[in-house]
Amino acid sequence: MNPPRTDARRHHDPQVRGFASDNYAGAHPEVLAALALANGGHQVAYGADAYTQNLQQIVRSHFGPTAEAFPVFNGTGANVVALQAVTDRWGAVICAESAHINVDEGGAPERMAGLKLLTVPTPDGKLTPELIDRQAYGWEDEHRAMPQAVSITQSTELGTVYTPGEIRAICEHAHAHGMTVHLDGSRLANAAASLDVPMRALTNAVGVDILSLGGTKNGAVYGEAVVVINQDAVRHMKHIRKMSMQLASKMRFVSVQLEALFAKDLWLRNARHANEMAQRLAEGVRAVHGVEICHPVQANGVFARLPHEVGERLQKRFRFYFWDEAAGVVRWMCAFDTTEEDVDAFVAALKEEMAPAHR
Amino acid sequence: MNPPRTDARRHHDPQVRGFASDNYAGAHPEVLAALALANGGHQVAYGADAYTQNLQQIVRSHFGPTAEAFPVFNGTGANVVALQAVTDRWGAVICAESAHINVDEGGAPERMAGLKLLTVPTPDGKLTPELIDRQAYGWEDEHRAMPQAVSITQSTELGTVYTPGEIRAICEHAHAHGMTVHLDGSRLANAAASLDVPMRALTNAVGVDILSLGGTKNGAVYGEAVVVINQDAVRHMKHIRKMSMQLASKMRFVSVQLEALFAKDLWLRNARHANEMAQRLAEGVRAVHGVEICHPVQANGVFARLPHEVGERLQKRFRFYFWDEAAGVVRWMCAFDTTEEDVDAFVAALKEEMAPAHR
Amino acid sequence: MNPPRTDARRHHDPQVRGFASDNYAGAHPEVLAALALANGGHQVAYGADAYTQNLQQIVRSHFGPTAEAFPVFNGTGANVVALQAVTDRWGAVICAESAHINVDEGGAPERMAGLKLLTVPTPDGKLTPELIDRQAYGWEDEHRAMPQAVSITQSTELGTVYTPGEIRAICEHAHAHGMTVHLDGSRLANAAASLDVPMRALTNAVGVDILSLGGTKNGAVYGEAVVVINQDAVRHMKHIRKMSMQLASKMRFVSVQLEALFAKDLWLRNARHANEMAQRLAEGVRAVHGVEICHPVQANGVFARLPHEVGERLQKRFRFYFWDEAAGVVRWMCAFDTTEEDVDAFVAALKEEMAPAHR
Amino acid sequence: MNPPRTDARRHHDPQVRGFASDNYAGAHPEVLAALALANGGHQVAYGADAYTQNLQQIVRSHFGPTAEAFPVFNGTGANVVALQAVTDRWGAVICAESAHINVDEGGAPERMAGLKLLTVPTPDGKLTPELIDRQAYGWEDEHRAMPQAVSITQSTELGTVYTPGEIRAICEHAHAHGMTVHLDGSRLANAAASLDVPMRALTNAVGVDILSLGGTKNGAVYGEAVVVINQDAVRHMKHIRKMSMQLASKMRFVSVQLEALFAKDLWLRNARHANEMAQRLAEGVRAVHGVEICHPVQANGVFARLPHEVGERLQKRFRFYFWDEAAGVVRWMCAFDTTEEDVDAFVAALKEEMAPAHR
Repeated sequence: MNPPRTDARRHHDPQVRGFASDNYAGAHPEVLAALALANGGHQVAYGADAYTQNLQQIVRSHFGPTAEAFPVFNGTGANVVALQAVTDRWGAVICAESAHINVDEGGAPERMAGLKLLTVPTPDGKLTPELIDRQAYGWEDEHRAMPQAVSITQSTELGTVYTPGEIRAICEHAHAHGMTVHLDGSRLANAAASLDVPMRALTNAVGVDILSLGGTKNGAVYGEAVVVINQDAVRHMKHIRKMSMQLASKMRFVSVQLEALFAKDLWLRNARHANEMAQRLAEGVRAVHGVEICHPVQANGVFARLPHEVGERLQKRFRFYFWDEAAGVVRWMCAFDTTEEDVDAFVAALKEEMAPAHR
Repeated sequence: MNPPRTDARRHHDPQVRGFASDNYAGAHPEVLAALALANGGHQVAYGADAYTQNLQQIVRSHFGPTAEAFPVFNGTGANVVALQAVTDRWGAVICAESAHINVDEGGAPERMAGLKLLTVPTPDGKLTPELIDRQAYGWEDEHRAMPQAVSITQSTELGTVYTPGEIRAICEHAHAHGMTVHLDGSRLANAAASLDVPMRALTNAVGVDILSLGGTKNGAVYGEAVVVINQDAVRHMKHIRKMSMQLASKMRFVSVQLEALFAKDLWLRNARHANEMAQRLAEGVRAVHGVEICHPVQANGVFARLPHEVGERLQKRFRFYFWDEAAGVVRWMCAFDTTEEDVDAFVAALKEEMAPAHR
Repeated sequence: MNPPRTDARRHHDPQVRGFASDNYAGAHPEVLAALALANGGHQVAYGADAYTQNLQQIVRSHFGPTAEAFPVFNGTGANVVALQAVTDRWGAVICAESAHINVDEGGAPERMAGLKLLTVPTPDGKLTPELIDRQAYGWEDEHRAMPQAVSITQSTELGTVYTPGEIRAICEHAHAHGMTVHLDGSRLANAAASLDVPMRALTNAVGVDILSLGGTKNGAVYGEAVVVINQDAVRHMKHIRKMSMQLASKMRFVSVQLEALFAKDLWLRNARHANEMAQRLAEGVRAVHGVEICHPVQANGVFARLPHEVGERLQKRFRFYFWDEAAGVVRWMCAFDTTEEDVDAFVAALKEEMAPAHR
Repeated sequence: MNPPRTDARRHHDPQVRGFASDNYAGAHPEVLAALALANGGHQVAYGADAYTQNLQQIVRSHFGPTAEAFPVFNGTGANVVALQAVTDRWGAVICAESAHINVDEGGAPERMAGLKLLTVPTPDGKLTPELIDRQAYGWEDEHRAMPQAVSITQSTELGTVYTPGEIRAICEHAHAHGMTVHLDGSRLANAAASLDVPMRALTNAVGVDILSLGGTKNGAVYGEAVVVINQDAVRHMKHIRKMSMQLASKMRFVSVQLEALFAKDLWLRNARHANEMAQRLAEGVRAVHGVEICHPVQANGVFARLPHEVGERLQKRFRFYFWDEAAGVVRWMCAFDTTEEDVDAFVAALKEEMAPAHR
């Protein structure tokens, strides 16, 4: 049989990569192949298909026997579904000021779910029990949005990583105050790879109640899952997912991608590679005089401070973002498909662009 | 080059099909092939990629020079994004009581967007200017949610189809009252195929302002688009899409699927085939004594009334849904991959199951 | 001590009354006097004052030992607070199509609380178990907003009244399906007066879980209360009230008005009088040839059908509203301060205006 | 005619006052008298009454010819109505971290209106153009909630006051960025009294677009108004007010209270007196060794730091709140009815309680 043809055309150069984001990358070939595997025939829509059923077993093997996966479309959707599940109408969520839910979701938590975010400034994107306490009070005060959940991001938006002990301390603290813990794990794989621990060591083993499990940034075409670990903390997840516009009709295609990521530890291979590229990049950058790395490089992102005009010149050669334009801080992200050559070429370019600045 | 392998496994029989829903079907091979085409390399996330740019041209060729496509994940998302775009905080949407937005979206319009739906009972799922008038009043009355938009579904949830003239009459009526018209086109292709007209004849040519353009039910893996035709009716679509959790990071993969559906008229081939299978099915059913077809079969669905126990026995052989269990009405949907053999086997089974009922 | 003066001036004629609405009336003098009584000195804001404490005892004496009152500002606020209290994020409320929450609250339930209303047409504004069943299904279907509460209005928006037995049947039916019953009692007093039963006979005695208890339409300056009867059905009422913008800082002034209405049965005297005026009006109207009374006159409103131009001429002499302009139906409401002379003059005017129509 | 009687009873001692809040006070007798004036007869409900009409003239005389008042029930309601009026679905509001809308409204802006608040820490509760700039960016970035309005509180939650020049600078800055300015004026009277300027000098004269005008904290029974100054900044205010559950049926009673506050400058007399009492209190406190005043005393509140156990002992004698329990900061508010004797007795008590702490 000949391969299926399409008259859609290729509009891009598949050899060009940059450092803008891990979601600028495409999909891993194994994930794409899995889509074909799940295709053909009819499968029950909306989650009662064989792939979503099978995914439950996989998820239990990674997140413990109570775990249940609710595949969704994207990260913002996963977060807003999960946070609705662990809050009442009057609930609020404590999070870092730099949390994706606070700064990068267009206000979706507030607008779609009526959630109040109680934010805390952090030096490195990481909450601690002490930092949580700045917002953890006033449960009986009706004038205050009631803190019902703590949301942490692992790995963080600043490329740092919580240790299992740090997460455990947060969970114990939150639980002691009757709060639930949500983990935004759009890059959980990178954290697990960085710490060389299984994902369970960062979630069910240390008290996380519910998480957003990322797929897209780690090689999927699209697709994440809300993973419920503490079943007592939630009710009617399916209703919440549907009303949040996150219920895929052909869910088999989300689930099989997640299966492909778990199969043969593709999730780990991808994350480990991206992390290694970030380490290689950081090493290269450290050798460039005048460029300062801002946060510990613990996952797949490198944050650096460099002269603004250098950043702008470099952007003409490689795609990346200023993170804090006023402060001259840039973010360089590595993906599963970043190559050593990409990194080396980028560091070389950085050196070239820095050179005149230090003449 | 060897094909990419995955260790995800096949969990289903790709030869089994039923009549439950067009979203029980998988993806058309040409669509799947398009995903591979768009893969590789880095592309700007969130819509500034080459595939989404190219999609704009395609969409303009189908929906006129003012058309602009905003790819989203699913139909409920498309509808809620589109309806937010054409209503103010105080706005309401007039729709048929049987509209998908009213009965099948888990309250997403109300919950996520605060929308009030002003519903009208219809005999066949179709609004008319007269039916609209049952809710079109009281714009200045602050006690009433202000009717700002009319939403129609084409083809309807009952398998019926609006003619271009009927849509034009609705649009003229709505516009005369200062209201915007949204078309839920999750099955627009089936309507166009049924009427043998281009999609523009049902949308921009007759006054539709904004539509939800379906992909998933017509052979995509996932993906729809909000298509804005009347740019004056909307503002800041991108913000609305993002805050509604419908912004795909790797949007190239949504856009290339839509491209594949438009390429070589795959959208039309798929829809036409599904419609033909529904006609074949209807013809077969009409020959079965004791089974009554409830609505004109104008798209890819057949609604029929039959003895309840027959329906239940038949469900053990083929998947489908009761539409109105109390009334004994069932819905049989055909998909792009339904075969003549599927239909004939189903009709034969129906005959067998009906036989004892009429002995 | 001289009475306090104000330089606010009188801008209206306190002798002019009409039949537009019971909220066109002012406040009963006993209520106004109560405000003065509660004035002076400092009282804890937001409900921990002596008047709100005292109100609890009063409310328990009328609605049973489990009753608890949450004073709020207005009827829409009371309804939206109460309905949020008995629904989850994914919940829906079954109500009559003619319910105030559906047609007269500007979409507040949908917009402020994300509530889906599942409406049922009724002949007389009254739900029944059979009518409820048209919407009471699909609890496990995530595509459907989950019916979690039934809301009835007593007396109804059409001037009709549920008997205790009718309410009991609704409550038993709703409870059997796991649903909670809310009673919109903005005119509960009129119903109790009409049936000559205590308010408890229409609420806690027959299974109502929560109600909106009206004050404004029965002689208060402003002020209603959400009364919780079934404490198991609600949580954190105070948080819901506050976040719904219905928490009065100087709550003593709401509570003392309700106290005044309960003291010496002012609530009953007011309601009984308004009802009697409606009966007198209905009797007078029945004697006018060509005017047809549309609904049983069971509370303080009279709905009548009359020639449209007669209605318009009459409106120049007395204020009232067309209820259904297309059908020529008007609504005439009597208030606590409507006099026999008002009614007689109105009937006389009606006769005069009808005369040419029947010459 | 004998005065109307009520059988509601007095449950409190009208001679007891404290320093907990200006809304622990009752109503000024002139306001109460105004209610009686507006009573009697029928007046059109929902704002088309003579008192609300008259209020428009009064408001225009104070806030300029474009001003329009929308009476509402309470301050949270006023703020949420006003902020909805000046934001789109995708809009966000920049405010001080200490703003009432952020910390004291139970999340009403987020829950009821889907608003995202972009907060900035301030030393004294006051925003500046520079502080605003920490959040004023990213209008075109769909990932960010779009800053569309700036909200300032005058006088602030910390008892400080913006000068007219400071407000003008904020308005010019906000307008230059296309943002609207809302002023939360629940204590605007205190600020005007403090600065000895008319309220217009703090609002329409310096560029404020819309404000929440307080009545309750300055001697009303209940009632505030949203005052629109820039009519181009808003649409359909009445619909927003209604759907926000803030539409009073008997609005004449809100309007006449505001009229009474404006008549003979009662608003100014009340505010000036409360401010003077705060000055007297501050003076007395400054003479007490060991107690430190935390913010400039510019309105009717005094914030002080004192030993925690002293605060607790003092609370047994006079009602007041800890503002920041961890920091040992208390808040003492003066009201229109605070007397010199109240202040002196309180200072004497403070001295007594401090004495042992400094033995």
